[in-house]
Amino acid sequence: MDYSLLWLDWKPKEVLPAYTKCITGMPATRQGKAALRELVSGLQAMGAEPEVRCGQASSVPSIHLKEYLGKDDKVTLRRSGDGMELAGSGTSLLYGVFHLLRHLAMGEEFPQWESAPAYPIRMLDHWDNADGSIERGYAGLSFFFRDGKPVCTERTRDYARLLASCGLNGCCINNVNVHGNALKLLTGSYKRELKRIALCLAEYGVSLWLCVSFSAPMELGGLDTADPLDGEVKRWWKETCLHLFTAIPNLAGFLIKADSEGRPGPHTYGRTQAEGANMLADAVSPFGGKILWRCFVYNCTQDWRDTKTDRARAQCDHFAPLDGQFRDNVYLQIKNGPVDFQIREPVSPLLGRLEHTASLLEFQIAQEYTGQQRHVCYLIPMFREILDFRFHSRPERDRTADRISAVCAVSNTGNDYNWTGHDLAAANLFGFGLISWDPAADPAEIAREWSILTFGDDPAVTETVTGILLPSREVYEKYSSPLGIGWMCVPETHYGPSPEGFEFDRWGTYIRANHREIGVERGPEGTGFTEQYSPELAAMYRGVASCPEELLLFFHRLPYDYRMKDGRTLLQRIYDDHFEGYEEAAAMSEAWDKLADKLEPEVFRRVQERFREQLRCAAEWRDVVNTWLYRLTMIPDEKGRRIYP
Amino acid sequence: MDYSLLWLDWKPKEVLPAYTKCITGMPATRQGKAALRELVSGLQAMGAEPEVRCGQASSVPSIHLKEYLGKDDKVTLRRSGDGMELAGSGTSLLYGVFHLLRHLAMGEEFPQWESAPAYPIRMLDHWDNADGSIERGYAGLSFFFRDGKPVCTERTRDYARLLASCGLNGCCINNVNVHGNALKLLTGSYKRELKRIALCLAEYGVSLWLCVSFSAPMELGGLDTADPLDGEVKRWWKETCLHLFTAIPNLAGFLIKADSEGRPGPHTYGRTQAEGANMLADAVSPFGGKILWRCFVYNCTQDWRDTKTDRARAQCDHFAPLDGQFRDNVYLQIKNGPVDFQIREPVSPLLGRLEHTASLLEFQIAQEYTGQQRHVCYLIPMFREILDFRFHSRPERDRTADRISAVCAVSNTGNDYNWTGHDLAAANLFGFGLISWDPAADPAEIAREWSILTFGDDPAVTETVTGILLPSREVYEKYSSPLGIGWMCVPETHYGPSPEGFEFDRWGTYIRANHREIGVERGPEGTGFTEQYSPELAAMYRGVASCPEELLLFFHRLPYDYRMKDGRTLLQRIYDDHFEGYEEAAAMSEAWDKLADKLEPEVFRRVQERFREQLRCAAEWRDVVNTWLYRLTMIPDEKGRRIYP
Repeated sequence: MDYSLLWLDWKPKEVLPAYTKCITGMPATRQGKAALRELVSGLQAMGAEPEVRCGQASSVPSIHLKEYLGKDDKVTLRRSGDGMELAGSGTSLLYGVFHLLRHLAMGEEFPQWESAPAYPIRMLDHWDNADGSIERGYAGLSFFFRDGKPVCTERTRDYARLLASCGLNGCCINNVNVHGNALKLLTGSYKRELKRIALCLAEYGVSLWLCVSFSAPMELGGLDTADPLDGEVKRWWKETCLHLFTAIPNLAGFLIKADSEGRPGPHTYGRTQAEGANMLADAVSPFGGKILWRCFVYNCTQDWRDTKTDRARAQCDHFAPLDGQFRDNVYLQIKNGPVDFQIREPVSPLLGRLEHTASLLEFQIAQEYTGQQRHVCYLIPMFREILDFRFHSRPERDRTADRISAVCAVSNTGNDYNWTGHDLAAANLFGFGLISWDPAADPAEIAREWSILTFGDDPAVTETVTGILLPSREVYEKYSSPLGIGWMCVPETHYGPSPEGFEFDRWGTYIRANHREIGVERGPEGTGFTEQYSPELAAMYRGVASCPEELLLFFHRLPYDYRMKDGRTLLQRIYDDHFEGYEEAAAMSEAWDKLADKLEPEVFRRVQERFREQLRCAAEWRDVVNTWLYRLTMIPDEKGRRIYP
Repeated sequence: MDYSLLWLDWKPKEVLPAYTKCITGMPATRQGKAALRELVSGLQAMGAEPEVRCGQASSVPSIHLKEYLGKDDKVTLRRSGDGMELAGSGTSLLYGVFHLLRHLAMGEEFPQWESAPAYPIRMLDHWDNADGSIERGYAGLSFFFRDGKPVCTERTRDYARLLASCGLNGCCINNVNVHGNALKLLTGSYKRELKRIALCLAEYGVSLWLCVSFSAPMELGGLDTADPLDGEVKRWWKETCLHLFTAIPNLAGFLIKADSEGRPGPHTYGRTQAEGANMLADAVSPFGGKILWRCFVYNCTQDWRDTKTDRARAQCDHFAPLDGQFRDNVYLQIKNGPVDFQIREPVSPLLGRLEHTASLLEFQIAQEYTGQQRHVCYLIPMFREILDFRFHSRPERDRTADRISAVCAVSNTGNDYNWTGHDLAAANLFGFGLISWDPAADPAEIAREWSILTFGDDPAVTETVTGILLPSREVYEKYSSPLGIGWMCVPETHYGPSPEGFEFDRWGTYIRANHREIGVERGPEGTGFTEQYSPELAAMYRGVASCPEELLLFFHRLPYDYRMKDGRTLLQRIYDDHFEGYEEAAAMSEAWDKLADKLEPEVFRRVQERFREQLRCAAEWRDVVNTWLYRLTMIPDEKGRRIYP
């Protein structure tokens, strides 16, 4: 096998509870049967030899699988005599089994559990291209596509197992930028292989989603328009969906990136985003299909001279006025921040504005701007912050977690042996699953669980790994773009520093630093972005003193000698952060080095190599950002540390 | 035909001299026969109906072709009775015929001419890849390669005609970065097609050259080393050359880029550049072959923090100590400046240091850094400056033109209809030919001739076209990188402005601007580059006051308030240049617009479109460079023009 099983590589346990000796119950669904299989093989891997007594009660302590019919996601693990009962629908049994196995692997006494996922859609978005490459992919090539075609392999099944084991239930397998052969996924060409993938995923309760091109009626149907109000266009989509949904079981719907970064969309025809989305929603609706409509719509040919247009405003400006105009089976897919997956952004104000429209929160575990799976950057604490964020626009159920109806993450997987390039990046995959199920999950506990499942239960290893993971986002932030300003990375690659790389480009991502000041003013005197929030939040962000310091340069243009709350100047804070960030990364790397004897040599070595690259790059970030600011301001570091004049 | 004939598209003349009525003489060589054919068809295109009386004297005024045997390049056109005699070896007859035709087309009375080319090698270097792409190619795809293989077509012949018509006699058809199928040009795979190309070129006196990879013995020969002193390696090259030179007539030798930008070379084995070049020289020598050895050797993984290493020094540092160690059939191919084809560089000091080694001056008409054939940039005045440059290291024959033994230019051609993308860029191709023949040729006269041959003899057209071409290099310089500093372009594309795009990168191309100063000091207190010149030149460049102002920021680090000779500050000069440069480009574009009625509509429109792009990009250069400097210095433009704060 040319890949690892990540956290599903169950390790032998010395002591197992008595009830692991016997399994009773006879699940009828394919998912229920998969649950039984996983339970048996999982327990066997841990050293138990469970007797399976299908359907019969047992006189010895046992695990009884009780399958309900229906689509209810609720799962219950509870004591039943000397044993346990695990009850739920087919897919819920799977969740229950994996929960049980994980907790047995952790050596916990009795994993009593009664739970249901917070959202009905918890999915991964893959940016895999038909040619096998992955846009912003940092873990090898695609395992969904090869040579222009979808492929279903043994890995597809293990992928589905990994998803189910952390509570995920969907994946969109192709890139939102649909090009090349990926266009043809909509039509007959690859139906057989797609069906195999869909069935393989279905066994683990994972739905298949596809990205489609809004102009498919032209590209594939030979029409001369893709106008969503055109009768021919509607008919084409309806017919195409009839064929596709009939041929492919377990197809949940489409994800669409429209009118953004050169993608076609309803704006081309003077139609609103709602008119575009609803037309597709009507086409998939007879099959119970859903439309995930990305809100990543902005002017991507901006003129840097123009200081009025603010890319951060675009989502609200485009979508807030349309609230309530979307069909029930449309979900607006909204990135967590108003710009694009920077290491620190405020929560997207659009998430607080939709009252009559379903929204899907989009995270990115691919680390496009956060170290590209070469730097450790455990993102779950950030996700938790975002989910916990209060908008102050409703009296209750006002947090992001309450407001959204679904959640997804741009995936960090590829066909690398370890799936995620950096072994430690798998914590983001696992953690995203757990926090999607329960947005109140504790990131520290997730890290601890992931570490034990992955590396075993040596407390020294667990302590070191969690000690690396938990602060890693702040460490990355410290040595990269400061205080929410973002966009100091190399334009083409989005990796490594280039403070003015985007400054005169067309992407609307400006820093506007001069000798005296830095940043874009987003208060009412500036672009007015702050006013997209509720009055309470707007007041907080508007005020320089009340604005959270970690977001100061996202919201405000400030002089370098601005005094931070602790008395340091803004510039000194940036210098300090960059020196400290590197030192902290170095300490993480040293901590890892001490695990040499405690881990598989290959795993140890792979991560060690990544740390070497992280340190090289962190030094580059530190020196480039500090040097650039020093040259601009000519204000030396108060502590006299090395900056290159 | 899907391409134009450029300046060889002879136009009908109302009046032609009497001697065009008859042609006598019977050339025996293939080149001589081609000369006769060109003469007949050229005169016919101009409206004459010459009688061809092979070998016989004529009683009517005639052109007598007198072919000498031998390889002498001398050509003579002189009166002979009422007619003219054109005398020379076969290829020289071709040069004479084209000279005659060009001057008849110009309407000149009697083109008396006695000439010989200044250099035996006058060639184009093509950076064409085997897959048909062209590295830094701005005029379409390759016409030498298609789908991984060399191809010989009708266009190959017309290419050879174009070269001969302006006096060029060689071309290297593949990229100096040898990869993919191009590696195999050395071995049997493509011999048949290469032979066809070689024969096609030979008819017009154009020699074929090939770029080879220094590590070919490993890549192709299966050896485990390419060490030039290894016996197996030597043997492999000798055998390979035996096969290749035997199979392909008219093969002149190899061009090699070694030990540069990731290319393999003798340094890998601890050998000198001379040992590497000489080994190859010995292998090609039995066949009269020559080795063109590129001196573009430098550390391309520089650390921007390192202020001691200076890429400008690299050529002299590497090659000057080796002077005299190279075989007679080795030519050191030296770029015109010490860095890399920037819009303004001093002449490479290495050209003034070689006393016992043949050197080949390398120009670039591909306009990689000078507008990429989307901006007008007539480079011949710059080439003339470089050829006229005196090194002050010999009492006489001390100019570049005297010191070099050969000349080449990186070609600007591709399979676009007009060969060079921008119609006006063909003037660089033509002009490079003429100035290679005669380094004292007048760039203004060349422009005039090219304009008349290309666009006809309407004086208004000629005046406008030459009025655009002649100042175009200074115009580009004004709105782009100022005063020799270079490297303010976008790193990936080398097109458009990004003042700090290279600043923290590995290429050794730094500007090191801060709030007070800009530039790299290259005097003895700095990198010491100035000391690579003769004492007289070193003294001139070393002194800030004596350094030519147009090169001030190449040689010196200066404060923005440094006073230029005319009293302006350095910064104000840069601001002024950028505003003026744009205005001058706009004036060029307006002048072109007035030719709408006087040119073929397609030609007019193509150039007009290019001007639109040039103006867009010139405005970008102006605004970005000015804004960047303003933000850095906070010193406003004295004239209050628009800069974006």
